Amino acid sequence: MNLLIVGSVAIDTVETPLGKVENALGGSATYASIAASYFAAPGIVGVVGGDFSRKHINLLKRKGVDLEGLKIDRNGKTFHWSGYYEGDMNQAFTRKTHLNVFEKFNPIIPKSYRKAPYILLGNIHPALQLEALAQVKKPRLVLCDTMNFWIASEPKLLEKVFRRADIICINDGEAYQFCKTASLPYAAKRLLAFGPKYIIIKKGIHGALLFGKNSFFSLPSIPLMKVKDPTGAGDSFAGGIIGYLACARKLDENTFRRGLVAGTVMASYCVEDFSCRKTSRLKKTEINKRAALLKKYTHVPSFKLS
Amino acid sequence: MNLLIVGSVAIDTVETPLGKVENALGGSATYASIAASYFAAPGIVGVVGGDFSRKHINLLKRKGVDLEGLKIDRNGKTFHWSGYYEGDMNQAFTRKTHLNVFEKFNPIIPKSYRKAPYILLGNIHPALQLEALAQVKKPRLVLCDTMNFWIASEPKLLEKVFRRADIICINDGEAYQFCKTASLPYAAKRLLAFGPKYIIIKKGIHGALLFGKNSFFSLPSIPLMKVKDPTGAGDSFAGGIIGYLACARKLDENTFRRGLVAGTVMASYCVEDFSCRKTSRLKKTEINKRAALLKKYTHVPSFKLS
Repeated sequence: MNLLIVGSVAIDTVETPLGKVENALGGSATYASIAASYFAAPGIVGVVGGDFSRKHINLLKRKGVDLEGLKIDRNGKTFHWSGYYEGDMNQAFTRKTHLNVFEKFNPIIPKSYRKAPYILLGNIHPALQLEALAQVKKPRLVLCDTMNFWIASEPKLLEKVFRRADIICINDGEAYQFCKTASLPYAAKRLLAFGPKYIIIKKGIHGALLFGKNSFFSLPSIPLMKVKDPTGAGDSFAGGIIGYLACARKLDENTFRRGLVAGTVMASYCVEDFSCRKTSRLKKTEINKRAALLKKYTHVPSFKLS
Repeated sequence: MNLLIVGSVAIDTVETPLGKVENALGGSATYASIAASYFAAPGIVGVVGGDFSRKHINLLKRKGVDLEGLKIDRNGKTFHWSGYYEGDMNQAFTRKTHLNVFEKFNPIIPKSYRKAPYILLGNIHPALQLEALAQVKKPRLVLCDTMNFWIASEPKLLEKVFRRADIICINDGEAYQFCKTASLPYAAKRLLAFGPKYIIIKKGIHGALLFGKNSFFSLPSIPLMKVKDPTGAGDSFAGGIIGYLACARKLDENTFRRGLVAGTVMASYCVEDFSCRKTSRLKKTEINKRAALLKKYTHVPSFKLS
């Protein structure tokens, strides 16, 4: 266990123009840990209810995800999200959210996790993100994810999380919202001022940007003819990134760029099927293949006007 | 003269959150020819009125733009667009459109232009684009631009233009609209079926995509702290591309990629000031500098999971 992932473990019912799944494995910690499992040894801190299926547990175990930190509350039910997507599937519409046992979730970090050098704070209440951080020994790297809901309701607490993060992962709309600006470079500059080494701006099908204090990297998404279900793409992206970083020998600019490659590849496989169906069954060669595609798709030949 | 550019020459009044210009030089052929002038020898086919200022003529001449094809209708007034942008300036709002002499514009290609090997069909009525093509000797390469208005009102005529183009330049929203799909790779596939060698999808601040039959290239835009006026960005982009292609020795995949680099650089300078102020005063070193930035910003390090 070298990567602590704090977040939700859920049961999802999802409908898209290309199909439907009921009671499928979901949640930010689930998607992230499965994506990270190809690179690192993740352990989850989360909570599920007595209804959480044995086969979900087995899938996570099979992927090498440590479950000591996954609390099973036999008296409650697992967090259940039901939603749908339309058209370009750019937006998730919620039908039902039953927080169930997740409503009173309080991250308790098992002793064996407290020295984990890498931490992914999934998208949960920033107070819980801070609570998780308070329980661990000084980690090497903390990546925090968030969402518009916390930006609107808890900006001050979120700022505290940002001050303790090494990487902030946020989407473009959220960056505009938090920084009250219409310029991404300006938003990144403001977020960097909180102290993180890098800001990652997620832009969905438009790819992702990596802003450092003196560096900039832009990576497109993999063009896909068919997207079946975008649920979990952002979590798979974050999991791929931190997973890759956790297995890298050094943390230089190229390593962070490779982290984005890993995240982008995992997100691209994630959306090609429902739930974690595809990301849980990948071969290393498939990951390498898409990473090579990204290199090919972005190659800028030398240019000199004389 | 090795590059024929057909399009509008206009007078613009533009207001953005960062300022305002009145009666400034504008129009698709203007922006495109100025951008192309750094690479090729463009000539314009368009029309202006008797009010068209001498200083605008002089600016175009100074940039080496051939004006034999620019008709000056002394009895009329120049096409005048007045508009404004707000917030992230993603959308232009029109206050006034006075077509004036442009209303009865009929492209007449001067004899000296008819053998031009490269042609840019700016965003005008597709019937006029076809009329221009009917007057020229078989060119080496035709790039056509268009807009949502023609897609909605003249889809059949536009399809005829697409069938005669080597490159279609279209923005993402227009591609969705024309192809009735929510998938860009699918839209590109449909457009390629009309026969062009390449489809270029413009995505504004998210950059541009180049789809070939068996190739794909994604290029981001240059991140800018300040955008003063987005007017003409798309035309400068198209002008930079075709200008670069017109000066290239061969037309292989890397040449087309470099074309996108040239277009992206010209668009990035265009939006940093009003009208053609910045694109008309560039040094070659400035163009090379931003081309080098694009290479640096997109470098994907090798990635191999073993």
